[in-house]
Amino acid sequence: MKILITGAGGFVGQLLAERLLIDGHTVTLTDIFEPPIPPKIPTKLHSAATTIAADLSTSSEAVLSPDLDAIFVFHGIMSAGSEADLALGYRVNLFSTAALLDAIRRTCRHDVRVIYSSSTAIFGQPLPALPSEATLPTPQGSYGAQKAMVELLINDYTRRGLFNGFTLRFPTISVRPGAPTQAASSWMSGIIREPLQGRESVLPCDDDFKVWLCSPRTLLANLVHTLSLPQDCLPPYIRQIQLPGITTDVRAMLAALREVGGDAALGLVRREPAAPEIKAILDSWPTTFDVSRALGLGFQSDQDFVGAVRDFADSLKQ
Amino acid sequence: MKILITGAGGFVGQLLAERLLIDGHTVTLTDIFEPPIPPKIPTKLHSAATTIAADLSTSSEAVLSPDLDAIFVFHGIMSAGSEADLALGYRVNLFSTAALLDAIRRTCRHDVRVIYSSSTAIFGQPLPALPSEATLPTPQGSYGAQKAMVELLINDYTRRGLFNGFTLRFPTISVRPGAPTQAASSWMSGIIREPLQGRESVLPCDDDFKVWLCSPRTLLANLVHTLSLPQDCLPPYIRQIQLPGITTDVRAMLAALREVGGDAALGLVRREPAAPEIKAILDSWPTTFDVSRALGLGFQSDQDFVGAVRDFADSLKQ
Repeated sequence: MKILITGAGGFVGQLLAERLLIDGHTVTLTDIFEPPIPPKIPTKLHSAATTIAADLSTSSEAVLSPDLDAIFVFHGIMSAGSEADLALGYRVNLFSTAALLDAIRRTCRHDVRVIYSSSTAIFGQPLPALPSEATLPTPQGSYGAQKAMVELLINDYTRRGLFNGFTLRFPTISVRPGAPTQAASSWMSGIIREPLQGRESVLPCDDDFKVWLCSPRTLLANLVHTLSLPQDCLPPYIRQIQLPGITTDVRAMLAALREVGGDAALGLVRREPAAPEIKAILDSWPTTFDVSRALGLGFQSDQDFVGAVRDFADSLKQ
Repeated sequence: MKILITGAGGFVGQLLAERLLIDGHTVTLTDIFEPPIPPKIPTKLHSAATTIAADLSTSSEAVLSPDLDAIFVFHGIMSAGSEADLALGYRVNLFSTAALLDAIRRTCRHDVRVIYSSSTAIFGQPLPALPSEATLPTPQGSYGAQKAMVELLINDYTRRGLFNGFTLRFPTISVRPGAPTQAASSWMSGIIREPLQGRESVLPCDDDFKVWLCSPRTLLANLVHTLSLPQDCLPPYIRQIQLPGITTDVRAMLAALREVGGDAALGLVRREPAAPEIKAILDSWPTTFDVSRALGLGFQSDQDFVGAVRDFADSLKQ
């Protein structure tokens, strides 16, 4: 397949591009800065990868072509960043995505698969005990509002037959490698990733704070799975899928850190309460979901969190 | 108060401007073409009205000033029009409204009241028996998708303290005077308005087809009521209010027409089935709602439909 990934310089984009190139697909990677070809890709596969720097709010056409089979829409400003800079968040998360989707319908085949990364941040309080795709989004952050708006756009363009859209609502991904991000959830990887590399990390929530997590390994399997879903597996105007995660809490995360990294790693976690505006966002997110739609469509779930910690620890040894 | 109305050349804008000017407010009327001062306004009150032609997608600032107390956001392309022209619908209903809201936060006081007209067209199937503000919008038309997206924007800007937003989800207004519109619901006024003036009118649905209607008189009372609601009557990030309507059906509407206009009027209704894409939109709209939020906030409801027919017949005699 010929596949485009936006936001391909980010962690998920790189992870996915690596897998797709190894599986033999042709991949275009685009981001606001020219994204790298994932470092593990052998030189003989480099000819299957194209890297393009593009500002999608003004030049979406430059990254599109009529022969694309699938487009992963992953670019965006993260949650804390969107809260800190109103105009930037809307420009990138809403308007550049809308411009891209409109360029897709003008440039690509109408059966092109468009896979959009949404988030549980679309939800806010009040919430039912077990939110599902039928639950009303009441975001308490601009990031969630922007994601919920684009979900409606994906539904509308798919209903009109302009492309074959899927919205995947990601759990928080942990353990995420690389540097801390502007996501309000950044610490949910940081408290594992940094101590396992001998660095201090800030924990802004108490032991009872619950989170909804998915490992990079399971996320990747689910992204690839979306490429094989039949278009009519969902109604044409309802394209959201809540990806499976596991509910855990800070106490269990710290126990997993200790199990893999010992007391030395645990000692590098420093507690410091979140700023009130970030705490409000964190507290508004639900921590468990009805994922029967996703499971019915063949998406996978993690079994436990310690497996994700071991995966990350193993990656450090390579 | 100093009040701005966008889409002020339209029926609801003119109705509201007339009432606000008579009540002693200062009113700016704007539309894509320079809107008229409502014809019933006596010349001595004309100095309280300003009329401006403006394309809000490019020149929102031109209609705003820091001393505004309230802004009614009524401009837009209607449902059938938005379905017929994808790009125009998004440009006006989403992007120009987003540009206006952003100009408001940069120009106006942060307690300015922003009252946005949304619609029951945000809903599609499947629906619970009694939809409320807690029901998930699953629009089956681009108009509904655009309205649902702006609702999220109104919530987010209000949550951030940038203005005091309220979203009113209008029932279909009937009997609406003037010419037929590009709304898929246009016939819900047409089958009364046209025959009472001796003209033929097309009815695209059968006798059992149910509708959710509100008279112009009640809508106007509810719009004025919104000017007095305290900001904290709703959570800062949930600003939607489902305005009260009454559920009736085509059979009862025709009976009301006959009661007021006689057999001569009834004979001018010609049956012609809707085009499939319009029928799909009409069939997707719910026809009854839980309006307890609105009633709890002091909004009014009609008692019956025949009152709206009499109001319209009386207006023809003036």
